[in-house]
Amino acid sequence: MTTSPETIHALDIATHMELRQFLSDARSRIDAKLDRLLPRESVEPVKLHAAIRWSVFAGGKRFRPLLTLAVGETFGIVEDKLLPTACALELIHTYSLIHDDLPSMDNDDLRRGRATCHIQFDEATAILAGDALQTLAFKIVSEDKTLSAEKRLRLIADISSAAGTPQGMVAGQALDLDAESRNVSAEELEQIHRLKTAALIITSARCGAIIADVTESDLEAVTEYAAQLGLLFQITDDLLDITATAEAIGKTPGKDRRSEKATYPHLHGIDAARDLALTVHARARAAVNQIERSTQHLSAIADYILNRTA
Amino acid sequence: MTTSPETIHALDIATHMELRQFLSDARSRIDAKLDRLLPRESVEPVKLHAAIRWSVFAGGKRFRPLLTLAVGETFGIVEDKLLPTACALELIHTYSLIHDDLPSMDNDDLRRGRATCHIQFDEATAILAGDALQTLAFKIVSEDKTLSAEKRLRLIADISSAAGTPQGMVAGQALDLDAESRNVSAEELEQIHRLKTAALIITSARCGAIIADVTESDLEAVTEYAAQLGLLFQITDDLLDITATAEAIGKTPGKDRRSEKATYPHLHGIDAARDLALTVHARARAAVNQIERSTQHLSAIADYILNRTA
Repeated sequence: MTTSPETIHALDIATHMELRQFLSDARSRIDAKLDRLLPRESVEPVKLHAAIRWSVFAGGKRFRPLLTLAVGETFGIVEDKLLPTACALELIHTYSLIHDDLPSMDNDDLRRGRATCHIQFDEATAILAGDALQTLAFKIVSEDKTLSAEKRLRLIADISSAAGTPQGMVAGQALDLDAESRNVSAEELEQIHRLKTAALIITSARCGAIIADVTESDLEAVTEYAAQLGLLFQITDDLLDITATAEAIGKTPGKDRRSEKATYPHLHGIDAARDLALTVHARARAAVNQIERSTQHLSAIADYILNRTA
Repeated sequence: MTTSPETIHALDIATHMELRQFLSDARSRIDAKLDRLLPRESVEPVKLHAAIRWSVFAGGKRFRPLLTLAVGETFGIVEDKLLPTACALELIHTYSLIHDDLPSMDNDDLRRGRATCHIQFDEATAILAGDALQTLAFKIVSEDKTLSAEKRLRLIADISSAAGTPQGMVAGQALDLDAESRNVSAEELEQIHRLKTAALIITSARCGAIIADVTESDLEAVTEYAAQLGLLFQITDDLLDITATAEAIGKTPGKDRRSEKATYPHLHGIDAARDLALTVHARARAAVNQIERSTQHLSAIADYILNRTA
């Protein structure tokens, strides 16, 4: 069994091409907006701002903000109302990567094929760059005048739950560090990923739905879709870490700190992990089908993650 | 010239006693509120939550939340409406201390007479504890139902500007790190302190005023008062670092990383730094006098900082 599109899931070619165009166009607009939102490198403290930009413009896939845009647009919201929050989510994600890469955490020198923030600059600057990115994320949402005050607060509350502890990303990272020193069960592994990776992916999708003022049942469907997407993302990440070349994933394969322990292929075996990816992908598509809208972008994104090679 | 109350500024004894009682009572209520706002140590991830509580309940003076309460109460606001924001500001302050103490930053093993977070736990946990505290701070303000949505957003915007970059605390810390490796001018030193220390003190006072919906001129007076207070705090801190005993300040005197460089006593000499403290104190009281309210707590706080011995 391979992870190529032919065997695992046949993407409709037209949808696939259209999705690629959507993702590519949206990425450009996300990057342009991020550029406008971040302090210039010429502004003091120059080194801090250079470090922030180094990490934000490090070739990330913009998966989380794309999800916000895709969900929001599914419910008919214009991009202007989605972009600030989408960018804020990317900044939270970037801050978490900078801190995760630090020597006392995952100790990664390389990310997406280039030096991590603390290698390119220094550890203190990397810590501060992460801190500042988190602050900026909340500032951006709080000041987004295209949304009502109530809506901005709902977004901030949702994002802060997903990013913090005990129900969010930082809690997941703490549990993951703890798991390093011992064997974890499949349940514990799922909990770690749910918090560390899926929580921010879920809020990224939910934010698009919150901005669109969707019904409670649509919000539930979006949440379920994104939860499965988050899990799928992690499983394919674990698989890629084992099977891909360094060139394709931009880091040393097998370098994953958890590669000997808390990964799906390790716990279940590679084939079973691939089967699990298919099951989770089917669940994501089933959740999308509950939404009575044109949801082909959301389905295509699920296909795209299942078939990703980087 | 000494910094004793007798010679520098004669505090009115009754006001002094009353202020001490106010500060002591308010501190208890701040601590009780913080206890309710933080995840319990029994909740997973246990180590992360233990680290958070270790640092939040490390015997801090609660200066920033006290300032929020004092300003708010000066304008007739009940404490219930002030406490959540006040606590959020203390969490931002605590996060900054945890990260400042890290080996790659100030590398401090001891704070307020006890082990710093990364010594008591480990570096990764300390980084995450700081990250989570910042998240929680914004969450608390966003969910404070005692305040209107518009007001909560004004608070978040003000706090995030003061905590981030280029106009806030993280920028100040970055400039301070940069100043370590070279001589700084008096102007640079003032800029560093304005961002690193004063910005959060200023927003702590401003938040009390924002909650009270004060006039623009009152907000300006509060801002000016707090700006002088922040400067005073830093000058007295620098002086204490040179003159106090380890027992009194809970850290090794002279340990201050900047003690040989970017401090007021170093740049101006001890006597001139004390004179500057008096000038700044007078400016703080002058700002307070522009407010047509019963401002004795605000004046007494300025006196208290001028005369502090720890």
